[in-house]
Amino acid sequence: MSKLLIVGTVAFDKIETPFGKTDKILGGAATFISLSASQFNVDSGIVSVVGDDFPEGYLEMLKSKNINTSGIEIVKGGKTFFWSGKYHNDMNTRDTLITELNTLADFNPVVPDNFKNTDFLMLGNLHPSVQMSVINQIPNRPKLVVLDTMNFWMDNEWDELIEVIKKVDVITINDEEARQLSGEYSLVKAAQKISAMGPQYVVIKKGEHGALLFNKENIFFAPALPLEEVFDPTGAGDTFAGGFIGYLAQSKDISFANMKNAVIYGSNMASFCVEKFGTRRMEGLKKEEIHRRLGQFKELTQFEIELS
Amino acid sequence: MSKLLIVGTVAFDKIETPFGKTDKILGGAATFISLSASQFNVDSGIVSVVGDDFPEGYLEMLKSKNINTSGIEIVKGGKTFFWSGKYHNDMNTRDTLITELNTLADFNPVVPDNFKNTDFLMLGNLHPSVQMSVINQIPNRPKLVVLDTMNFWMDNEWDELIEVIKKVDVITINDEEARQLSGEYSLVKAAQKISAMGPQYVVIKKGEHGALLFNKENIFFAPALPLEEVFDPTGAGDTFAGGFIGYLAQSKDISFANMKNAVIYGSNMASFCVEKFGTRRMEGLKKEEIHRRLGQFKELTQFEIELS
Repeated sequence: MSKLLIVGTVAFDKIETPFGKTDKILGGAATFISLSASQFNVDSGIVSVVGDDFPEGYLEMLKSKNINTSGIEIVKGGKTFFWSGKYHNDMNTRDTLITELNTLADFNPVVPDNFKNTDFLMLGNLHPSVQMSVINQIPNRPKLVVLDTMNFWMDNEWDELIEVIKKVDVITINDEEARQLSGEYSLVKAAQKISAMGPQYVVIKKGEHGALLFNKENIFFAPALPLEEVFDPTGAGDTFAGGFIGYLAQSKDISFANMKNAVIYGSNMASFCVEKFGTRRMEGLKKEEIHRRLGQFKELTQFEIELS
Repeated sequence: MSKLLIVGTVAFDKIETPFGKTDKILGGAATFISLSASQFNVDSGIVSVVGDDFPEGYLEMLKSKNINTSGIEIVKGGKTFFWSGKYHNDMNTRDTLITELNTLADFNPVVPDNFKNTDFLMLGNLHPSVQMSVINQIPNRPKLVVLDTMNFWMDNEWDELIEVIKKVDVITINDEEARQLSGEYSLVKAAQKISAMGPQYVVIKKGEHGALLFNKENIFFAPALPLEEVFDPTGAGDTFAGGFIGYLAQSKDISFANMKNAVIYGSNMASFCVEKFGTRRMEGLKKEEIHRRLGQFKELTQFEIELS
């Protein structure tokens, strides 16, 4: 079984959507990534940090999904990273109401010894220096390193981010971020430029409009599943990344042909994430549901044209 | 060979994009639809109106593509419909600078006798009363009636538009129009509501984000081909519709499975249209290019997942 190390936030989220609002609930990039990847046969672990206000029950839930939490540092007297946001009616845009870094501000990641030989490394959205520290703690290069990042680091930590981008195989970012990072409006040109910065594969996430996978020669597109209702988009991008790397880690095949399948699985997992608030849907998700939805993705995209 | 009657504008366009600007050039919904459909084996004809300022050369060009132009009325002393628009940098939004209805203002469409038994009817974007007049001139219901319309008619001629919608098999509109027509934000719900108004099939065009095909039980998605440059989006939606109905008319198969192929062909044709100003690209388009691009659409969308 492949080892998969996931670095990212484990957090409290407080979310408001047109459908309702939550109290502080479980959130964070590493949380969503690991829950999504836990649907595949992988030996996964998280590197993150929380305060001692973080409920033991959340850690127990992650452990019950065979996610190794020994790399989640618990800071005595510290408070867990907290994010609060409000989605607009179109669910595509949101306002951040509160960001309290708390223990995340001084986070020095420590990769547990039993994950220093990880086969797959997922660098969830975090300060590029934290991502780089994790890369440097792994003596032999993993089979595949996937990076997720966001515009905030492009605005504030450009040079450090560029150094991290040089070292990864796959980058996953959204369309606006791809444009910002490359200075190109066309996503085809943006992907070419970003690939020239280092990553052999570029995944551009377009939310409800699906995701594009690029390498030098090929382009593949995975649509988002058209849903009657998107209840809460929080974590959908991380859930996509978790499905992507979870499937690759399970199948141990990092060819472009198999990455096509991986973005379909990413889109598949994300389609569940948005159906309930926070991690609720992902916590209860069954393998049969994923298989059934894969059938829907096939119906949605597969066609047979005989050339006339 | 199926007969295909196309009703819509034949016009002058003056276009400005970030790549340049044109003088008055050939445009109009029926023009783009018929040029696109002319790539398929169909016996097609246009019902429209122009002024005597309309160059004979444009009509000759259409005739050279086996498009019957006998239903294009030429009004002596009249001026041809003229539209001028300017695209913003993102190419997704545009400002209309000039709209001169001219001969279109009093257009009374007359279906030529040899198209009164048409097998396929494409109602391009026009005043709903003109569309209804054409429907009423055809004694035996065609095999398939496809309607294209836009928000302008929803704003100004709601009741007449609803009467036309009742009478068609397929409606093609963009995402914002689908939301306006249905009052639903979710495109899945919007398609359900629109289908309840009459059309068995609903095609929602999302521009660079592709197109969705719905009937009661099924959803299919055709992406737009990711392009390095979109030069001029004018006519892309009509070109999509022309490819859609042209393929259906050629294959004479209006099953959902074949409509999947039709939206792929629609998207295929539209991907060419945007590569040059106006009708330029469509006029010179070769069948081999369409076949080659179909291969690109397959690579872009087709995957093979073995369930584990």
